[in-house]
Amino acid sequence: MKRMITLDTEKMPRAWYNALVDLPKPLEPPLNPATGKPLGPQDLEPLFPPALIEQEMSQEPWIAIPLEVLEVYALWRPTPLYRARGLERALNTPARIYYKYEGASPAGSHKPNTAVAQAYYNAISGIRRLTTETGAGQWGSALSFATRFFGLECTVYMVRVSYDQKPYRRSMMEVWGGTVHPSPSDRTQTGRSVLEKDPSNPGSLGLAISEAVEDAVTHEDTHYSLGSVLNHVLLHQTVIGLEAKEQLAQVGEYPDVVIGCCGGGSNLGGIALPFLPDKASGKEVRLVAVEPKACPTLTKGAFTYDFGDMARMTPLLKMYTLGHSFMPPSIHAGGLRYHGDSPIISLLVREGVMEATAYYQREVFQAGILFARSEGFIPAPETNHAIKAAIDEAVKAREEGKEKVVLFNFSGHGLLDLSAYDAYFKGDLQDYELADEEIKRALAELEKLAVR
Amino acid sequence: MKRMITLDTEKMPRAWYNALVDLPKPLEPPLNPATGKPLGPQDLEPLFPPALIEQEMSQEPWIAIPLEVLEVYALWRPTPLYRARGLERALNTPARIYYKYEGASPAGSHKPNTAVAQAYYNAISGIRRLTTETGAGQWGSALSFATRFFGLECTVYMVRVSYDQKPYRRSMMEVWGGTVHPSPSDRTQTGRSVLEKDPSNPGSLGLAISEAVEDAVTHEDTHYSLGSVLNHVLLHQTVIGLEAKEQLAQVGEYPDVVIGCCGGGSNLGGIALPFLPDKASGKEVRLVAVEPKACPTLTKGAFTYDFGDMARMTPLLKMYTLGHSFMPPSIHAGGLRYHGDSPIISLLVREGVMEATAYYQREVFQAGILFARSEGFIPAPETNHAIKAAIDEAVKAREEGKEKVVLFNFSGHGLLDLSAYDAYFKGDLQDYELADEEIKRALAELEKLAVR
Repeated sequence: MKRMITLDTEKMPRAWYNALVDLPKPLEPPLNPATGKPLGPQDLEPLFPPALIEQEMSQEPWIAIPLEVLEVYALWRPTPLYRARGLERALNTPARIYYKYEGASPAGSHKPNTAVAQAYYNAISGIRRLTTETGAGQWGSALSFATRFFGLECTVYMVRVSYDQKPYRRSMMEVWGGTVHPSPSDRTQTGRSVLEKDPSNPGSLGLAISEAVEDAVTHEDTHYSLGSVLNHVLLHQTVIGLEAKEQLAQVGEYPDVVIGCCGGGSNLGGIALPFLPDKASGKEVRLVAVEPKACPTLTKGAFTYDFGDMARMTPLLKMYTLGHSFMPPSIHAGGLRYHGDSPIISLLVREGVMEATAYYQREVFQAGILFARSEGFIPAPETNHAIKAAIDEAVKAREEGKEKVVLFNFSGHGLLDLSAYDAYFKGDLQDYELADEEIKRALAELEKLAVR
Repeated sequence: MKRMITLDTEKMPRAWYNALVDLPKPLEPPLNPATGKPLGPQDLEPLFPPALIEQEMSQEPWIAIPLEVLEVYALWRPTPLYRARGLERALNTPARIYYKYEGASPAGSHKPNTAVAQAYYNAISGIRRLTTETGAGQWGSALSFATRFFGLECTVYMVRVSYDQKPYRRSMMEVWGGTVHPSPSDRTQTGRSVLEKDPSNPGSLGLAISEAVEDAVTHEDTHYSLGSVLNHVLLHQTVIGLEAKEQLAQVGEYPDVVIGCCGGGSNLGGIALPFLPDKASGKEVRLVAVEPKACPTLTKGAFTYDFGDMARMTPLLKMYTLGHSFMPPSIHAGGLRYHGDSPIISLLVREGVMEATAYYQREVFQAGILFARSEGFIPAPETNHAIKAAIDEAVKAREEGKEKVVLFNFSGHGLLDLSAYDAYFKGDLQDYELADEEIKRALAELEKLAVR
């Protein structure tokens, strides 16, 4: 009985799909925070290489994947597509559930799909070093892995509290040759000024971003790299959905619903965006974003211009946001704790092309454990959100007595998140739901921004 | 450029290869420790189901893999075979290096290949629960994973010091529904008597085996399960080598040398045994076992009858051994810290059909880091031993200016062993080598055994 649907290396996609050409209306431009005017390419040059700036705004429907990138992808791509027969049986559902297994990458998640591309384009533009920030370490480890293949150095600013408490992802980055500094560090003006006031400051993602950006703009040969939100990041992730479509076609299937968890939006974009042209030409396929009720950006946020970071250093993006000063409760799905969302995903939700739904922390862990016990793979806490939504679709199919094809993205495995499962079993996990009042308070900050 | 060589589910082996029919001479029989007489099938019945006892002594060259087992294998098998192009480039070698990636299983190692088969045969013989012991947790997690698919309970006795210090593999077992007890426990006579004398006893693998065996023999519906050493375990692992041969044939290759790390011998047997018939019919292929210098069973041990466990409860096996009371230094490759070896592997080394070599701890970590930085995947400390031997073969090929095809088994990934890499980077790893005198002392205990 076939469970794993492989795809031969020769059939790996040769181009990324650019969703910008199929949006229901054009994205509103990012704005320069100082002038309030639309950003020009030159505004991004201190941070990104020309190819990525071009991709950020491109109107080409397909962008060829460089051979050098394909060669590194070939270490784990094409990833398997699985028919979740064990889960189907456990649910006694007439639905056929498929999941794209991005846990197969050496870093254990989808993140290397863009890390490899970003490392390549920086390397060919003469850059010698990349900087980035990382919380729990998922993105920092993906970039440490990727830079390795193009002779780049990688400097990661890791939030101090994670640096101290989660040494394993730090070791992972070091195995791949990355250099990891706890943030706040004494390597940047920002870090030093924080340390001066509070030498034992635990750090934050916003602060780590500021340090990584400062390090990049103050060094000639250095650029900054971002793991989600931006258009070029989602572009690189479309290999996920392109492969999945090909694999489904091999077994004569087409999904009724496509599901991904959503923090900044990159894994969701990866699986869902390649279905946009079909949808535009009248095909019925639902696209579903799943987020935590603890950080309900798409389901409860405002659609407006906001900063990408807490420190107000980034351009203003038009997106769903809870406000850049919003600090989400400390749930285990760290990758979904982002106040904003990808502008592409935000627009799709705003225009009704994509749905959004939110779950509590405990019910998604329960879903993840059912998955592990029926399919074998232990999912990351983020991935559990997509699993919960897929299960709900399958249960609904059973209740309605309908066949249905469900596709979701298994964005990463949870082998470095086992402490979260431990906490679940001990009964230590809490269900957070933001009160409307809290959200109002979080959004109030946005009122003060000049642009809307 | 092709790196990953996949194999379609339809081409998964349908039968295990039984090496007992191709050994250079028959294995000497296991002996009953009480009588010193060869063991009969009835001696094993309290521990194992009929099918496994039959497989332990079978003279059939091929044993059909039950459909129910194939269906669970299909979750991650066939595993990919990789051409190690990055490593080849890093070594500037004319050798072509291939590795079979057993890290693809949900448990992250080759162990589920036999765990699934053992769970199945126990389930169909009416057993309701399996017991086993585990040190760091590799085998306990594989069995917890496997029992899940056949409605069996799984009770794991985990050495207390690991239970306390390595909570992540314990969480992993619990995610899959296994019940984990720190050993010594109050659940067995053996455990209670130890705790009475020393309530804070840290436990040992020998003690955990005794508890798991006692639990099995004192409960009607319960059997015991072993993760290495025995013939039926190596039998189940031959899917590794059978798939690898098929994948190599797809790209027109045949190995000059086949390499595996060796603790009890199961992953090495898995990759190497399927080459025995070719070797017997005159084909030139070297088979190489790699062990740590800290536990040099094959390279420095005696070939004699010995107990499988420290507590002298198991049958006597004819094998290479350092003596059942030998306590190897605490290296990070916990899976290679076994005083004995599989009787099949031992006989092959004894008869010159297989070579054996040993390395220091630090040089194998260095090899593993080179691998991670050129191939991406982070290997388990055990796997690093096979990698070091493969690198040495490739370097020799360069020095001799010769082409050569090297195949090794990537037995498992190291994502749950990152603390060992951390220790390596900090300079905390030691190179142990046993002095001949220590080995003499360890072997002296064997002299007292009646049988030889």
